[in-house]
Parts: sequence; structure tokens; C-alpha cells
Amino acid sequence: MTRRPALAVVGATGAVGTVLLTILSQRADIWGEIRLIASPRSAGRKLSVRGEEVEVVALTEDAFDGVDIALFDVPDEVAARWAPQAAARGTVVVDNSAAFRTDPDVPLVVPEVNAHAVRRRPRGIVSSPHCTTLSMIVALGALHAEFGLRELVVSSYQAVSAAGRAGVETLRRQLALVVGTELGTCPGDVRRAVGDDTGPFPEPVALNVVPWTGTLCEDGWSSEEMALRDETRRILGLPRLPVAVTCVRVPVVTAHSLTVHARFEDEVTVDRAQEILATAPGVVLYDDPAAGGFPTPADVVGTDPTWVGRVRRALDDPTALELFVCGDNLRKGAALNLVQIAELVAGEESSAVPRTTP
Amino acid sequence: MTRRPALAVVGATGAVGTVLLTILSQRADIWGEIRLIASPRSAGRKLSVRGEEVEVVALTEDAFDGVDIALFDVPDEVAARWAPQAAARGTVVVDNSAAFRTDPDVPLVVPEVNAHAVRRRPRGIVSSPHCTTLSMIVALGALHAEFGLRELVVSSYQAVSAAGRAGVETLRRQLALVVGTELGTCPGDVRRAVGDDTGPFPEPVALNVVPWTGTLCEDGWSSEEMALRDETRRILGLPRLPVAVTCVRVPVVTAHSLTVHARFEDEVTVDRAQEILATAPGVVLYDDPAAGGFPTPADVVGTDPTWVGRVRRALDDPTALELFVCGDNLRKGAALNLVQIAELVAGEESSAVPRTTP
Ligand SMILES: NC(=O)c1ccc[n+]([C@@H]2O[C@H](COP(=O)([O-])OP(=O)(O)OC[C@H]3O[C@@H](n4cnc5c(N)ncnc54)[C@H](OP(=O)(O)O)[C@@H]3O)[C@@H](O)[C@H]2O)c1
Ligand SMILES: NC(=O)c1ccc[n+]([C@@H]2O[C@H](COP(=O)([O-])OP(=O)(O)OC[C@H]3O[C@@H](n4cnc5c(N)ncnc54)[C@H](OP(=O)(O)O)[C@@H]3O)[C@@H](O)[C@H]2O)c1
Repeated sequence: MTRRPALAVVGATGAVGTVLLTILSQRADIWGEIRLIASPRSAGRKLSVRGEEVEVVALTEDAFDGVDIALFDVPDEVAARWAPQAAARGTVVVDNSAAFRTDPDVPLVVPEVNAHAVRRRPRGIVSSPHCTTLSMIVALGALHAEFGLRELVVSSYQAVSAAGRAGVETLRRQLALVVGTELGTCPGDVRRAVGDDTGPFPEPVALNVVPWTGTLCEDGWSSEEMALRDETRRILGLPRLPVAVTCVRVPVVTAHSLTVHARFEDEVTVDRAQEILATAPGVVLYDDPAAGGFPTPADVVGTDPTWVGRVRRALDDPTALELFVCGDNLRKGAALNLVQIAELVAGEESSAVPRTTP
Repeated sequence: MTRRPALAVVGATGAVGTVLLTILSQRADIWGEIRLIASPRSAGRKLSVRGEEVEVVALTEDAFDGVDIALFDVPDEVAARWAPQAAARGTVVVDNSAAFRTDPDVPLVVPEVNAHAVRRRPRGIVSSPHCTTLSMIVALGALHAEFGLRELVVSSYQAVSAAGRAGVETLRRQLALVVGTELGTCPGDVRRAVGDDTGPFPEPVALNVVPWTGTLCEDGWSSEEMALRDETRRILGLPRLPVAVTCVRVPVVTAHSLTVHARFEDEVTVDRAQEILATAPGVVLYDDPAAGGFPTPADVVGTDPTWVGRVRRALDDPTALELFVCGDNLRKGAALNLVQIAELVAGEESSAVPRTTP
């Protein structure tokens, strides 16, 4: 019998880290030690995982001693600095930040779609995509495998918890200011009530939608729009796929939604698309509009799969489908995908496949 | 000097009717009498227009005596019954319901885009488009005039006031239930808190987005999605324009937003598109993401124009533009467009152009 692999959770105290501990407590337990790591500010705190209290240790080089796989859920700059150090000591890093997502020597992995990619990791680091990409890519991967994707036009409805604990607190504070008032009916009234208290968002998010997520890139594009395009191409192995996207924040706590217009190689039928989605691992088809059946964030939050509804064939193009897709940005959009990648890596080790490490 | 035309507002007590009275009080006053009409329930109520109290009269045939133009803002079935009767008595009807929007003998008019169409009205009725169409069509019409539209992919972020007073009251009631709680973080928790109190919506709308507006048509399409496509084609005079659309309700009181992917005949440039939008009547370009400049419902509510931001050229198609468009669904989306049409008709009469009536 081989030793059970030791796992570290780096950023165990954060929004994603908290969900990670829940998921590790719910899934089949294949791990030996689970070590919890955060900033020195949190060292000594106790958090519950697998029903046990575990003390948080500060992030140092020694923190990775004896750790086989480390899940990183920390700000980009912390990951950029520490992931290579952990990897240099032989720990496989599974990273959730943006630090390595465009590095050609770091695979970008969604186990349902491109599990094979995890094995080629010359830097000893595996990257997990942005939550918006993850909220749609499992469903799209299943349709692509059958129909061959040729073009995507996507619009997002992104929840505030993707901006961490600060995002959620900001929405709750702003909602308390607008409730029981007539706000939302005169120009600028919500903005005046909220003042400068917009938290991590550029505009008030209560009673509003904000067509901006991420930072400014070239030609007016946001970093999250660019990421959705580039990551979709990498994961599906379609380096020239046309992807048009506009990212929008909405006053939802958790669960991202997206509308997707997807054009394929040949004619598609709704029946076949529904069959594929109904049987694809990690996808739930919920598509019965006559009975009010379509996914919404209120139902999808707290669940693992990607939910798909409103499946229609484009009225003017027999090769295109319209979809409404919804997924929990903290679970599949972040924590769950990390755990699934770690399970892939652990499985590979126990079946004694040679590892490609630095 | 000719007599000033007499105007009637049918549905003066409703959500749109109320905004109509405000707009009639703000714009250049070209009207003689303004008569206010509603159901017998409201007869005798006094409402303020042009600074005067006017008594509401019940909708009867005689209510149109001496009325030149009647603005109809009533439920579809009321419009279907009463508009032809008013027209038969020589009153030009400008209707905001869905009753006549697909009738080839009733022009569908947006003055900035197809003012000429108002003159051919064999039934004596002119129709105004659905609020979602109106929230984007002035901006698109301006771009089409220069670049020639070839394809549209649209997603909506629709405000609750498009479902009348009941829509607004429902959102406010639901917000009072979720504020100060942790709701929105567990599956179904918002639904349990809201219970059956979803008002005119199929699902809770607070802390949620709902991918459904309108009624069920064929093949899973909603009536509002079909309307957006059909109305866009009629107004732009492009009967075969491919239009893909998904309509989504969001927890915003007033002002619809849309993301638009628009493909044109030839290459487009962002500079020229911005120039067109900056100078088009009825459009405001607000596009400076580096300084946080993009429209949101919180700023657009209560204003007349269509606001456009996030103007980008598609990354993978030099003939396509991405836009974020925002407009007040009660003003340009309903009341303002009716008044503008009425002003067109009134202008035509005073310049003694022969009318085409039944
Ligand atoms: N939220 C999402 O939906 C989502 C989705 C995908 C990816 N991500 C990415 O995941 C990462 C974490 O996001 P989050 O939302 O969980 O953020 P968060 O709630 O702000 O948590 C940040 C975590 O990082 C730790 N940390 C910060 N600075 C550190 C340092 N110098 N050394 C060690 N640990 C440090 C914090 O520890 P202390 O508590 O000790 O400060 C905390 O555990 C980010 O890269 C984010 O972009 C988030
Ligand atoms: N809200 C929007 O954004 C929007 C946008 C575009 C188009 N529309 C359309 O505009 C119309 C009105 O919408 P709304 O939101 O203003 O609705 P609303 O707030 O419910 O008001 C309905 C109006 O119709 C009157 N009415 C109802 N039944 C009547 C009857 N049997 N005879 C005479 N009057 C009657 C009501 O008078 P009482 O007060 O006496 O009952 C009230 O004035 C609808 O066709 C709607 O689809 C609305």
C-alpha cells in the first residue's frame, strides 16, 4: 500500500479557501495530511476540515516540507512568488490565480474537458481557469466534442463573490441603503446614496448592473474578457477560435450566469444538444420553459455542476445554438476545479506514471 | 393660425401613463386639450399635467370626440379592442401595446430611425416597439446607416419596471426579505424566503437573474426574444437580418441594458463608430473605461437618450463591433417614443400633407 499524498491549502482563510475546506470535507477522502497555510496574520487560527480542527501555519518555504500537492488560492502576486518555490521543492502546485494562466509551460486544466493536459507540467505548476470561463466551459466542451465549435459570442452576469469577501460585503452594505426607499428611479440617486463606498467595483452594484470586471487592457477590453477568450481557446485546443465577449457584474451573491451564442461546423439540433448536455459529466440540463424550468443563480449556488437551460437553435442559422449557462463561481468556478485537478495528479502518482517536473 | 391638435392619453394612471404626463409637462407644448383616459375605476381622479389638474374620464367611444391623436398605454387586449374604434372616429392612435406591432398595415415607428414610415398608416394606427427593442435601436440605426448591418447577437439585462407597477413592488418586497441576511449563499435559500411571492416574474428577482421575459413561443423562444428580432428587422427595413437574442431579467428598477455584437458589411473602426454615436440624435456616447466611463442603469434612469459605452471592435472579426447599450425603459422605451411619434403626426397635419387614413 502506498502512502496517502499530503495536501496543502494555501490561502485557507479566504473566500475560495473556505469553500475548499468544505469540499475537501465532502468528497471521497484520498488525502493523508491536509496542511492549512495563510499569511502570518492568520497563523495559529484553527479551521475545520474533515471534521477536525487544524491550525493554520504561515506561508514560508518550510511550510511545503513533505507536501505532495499544494492548492494555491491567494492573490496573483503571492502565487507568482511562492508557487515556483514550492514546485522547486517537489510539490506539485495547483494554482487558482491569474499568475500562470497564459504560461505555455503551465497547463490550464478542466478535468472534464482536457484532463490529459495535466501531465505535461514542466514547471511543476498546473493552472485553473478564471471563474467565468469555468462557469461555461464544461458544457461547451461537451458540445464541441460532438459538433465542433467554430465561433462564440458570450455575455456574462457575474456574481459579487468573485471579488472575494470584500465583494459580498459591499453588495450587502449597499442593499441596506436602498431597501425601503424609492431609489433606482431618478438619475444618479443610487450613486448619491452609496457615495464612494463602491468596494472592489467601479460603480454601485445594488439595483444596478456594471459592464466592467477586471482591469483595462488594450483597445477598451477588460482583463476578464481577454481571459475568457484566451482560456477557452487553450482549454478546447482551438487557438484561433473567434470569441466575442462582454463581461457584466450583477447584484447576485454567488453563481455566474452567461448567455452563449455558439456556432458549430455543421447543422445542430436541439434534441441532440439536449441529449449531450443531459449525459455530460458535470453538467445538468434544466430546460423546460413551459413549466418554468431554467437555471437561475438562486438555485445553482452551492451546487457543483454547470447548469444549462434555454437551449434553442438560432432562428437564422441552423449551425448555431443559444444557451443560458449558470455555475457556482466559488465551487466549480474555483475550489472544486482545484480539488478535481489535485485528484487527477494524485491518481497519476498512485498509478506510478512518471511525473514531468523541473 | 391653425387649431392646436387635441391629445388623449389612454392609460394615464399606469406606470407608462405617469411618465407620459411628466414628459408632456417637460417638452415644448404644441397641444390644445390633453384629455386623460383610464378604466372606469379611475374616472374622476385628478392628475397633474402641464401644471394643471385634469380629471380622468372613463374609456368609452365618446371619450375620443374631438381628439386628434390618442396615445394608448393599456394592456394588449384593451388596445386591441379600443384602438380601432378610436381610429374609426378619425383619431390617429399611437399604441404602445403588442396588439399591432406585427400588423403590416400598422407602421412600427422610431422617429430617429424610420420617421418616414409614420405616413403610411391605412388603419389610422401607429405602433411603438417593445421597450427592449427601443433601448438599443436608435444607436443601432445610426451605425447601420453608415456601416450596413449584417448580423446581431444580443443579450438583455431588463429592469423590473417593464412589468409595470407590479414589477417594481415585487422587487422592493423581495429586497426587504433578503437585506441583512446571509441569503444568496445556499441552494434555494432566496426561493424559500420569497415563497410564492414572485409577482409577475417566474422566479425570485432579488439577488438573482431570471433568463425569461414574456410568454412561451415555439421551440423554446420567449415572446420578447421574438419581438426583439422581428421589430429590429421591421424598423431597420432588413427583413432577413439574422438576430440571435436571449432576454434576461435583472434586479434593477428602471433602465434596460443590452450587450450587442453587431456585424456589418465591411470593416469598421472604433474611431468612426464613436464619432457616429457621439453625433447621432438621441444617443449619448459614454465610453472612457480608463476613467470608469461606461453607462449603468443607475445613471441612465430618468434620462431620455440611449447611452452607449464599451465600444470595441471584435478581436477576431474586423467587421464586428461590441457595445453596451443602456436606456430608460419607461422614457425612450415607452412614453417618450409615443410622444415623439405624436409630434411627428401633429407636424405633418399642420404642414397640410395629405393623410392616409381608413
Ligand atoms: N472568488 C472567486 O470566485 C475566485 C474564482 C477564481 C479565482 N479566484 C482567485 O483565487 C485567489 C483567492 O481569491 P479569494 O476570493 O479567495 O480572496 P480572499 O477572500 O481575499 O482570500 C485571500 C487569501 O490569500 C491569503 N493571503 C493574502 N496575502 C497573503 C500572503 N502574503 N501570504 C500568504 N497568504 C496570503 C489570505 O490569507 P489571510 O486571511 O491570512 O490574509 C487569504 O487566505 C485570487 O487569486 C483570486 O483571483 C477567486
Ligand atoms: N412598463 C414598460 O416598460 C412598458 C414598455 C413598453 C410598453 N409597455 C406596454 O404599455 C402598456 C401599459 O403598461 P404599464 O406598464 O403602464 O401598465 P400598468 O402600470 O399596469 O397600467 C395599465 C393602464 O391601463 C389602464 N387600463 C387597464 N385596463 C383598462 C380598461 N379596461 N380600460 C381602460 N383602461 C384600462 C389602467 O387604468 P386603471 O389605473 O384605471 O386600472 C392603467 O392606466 C402595456 O401594453 C405594456 O405592455 C410597457
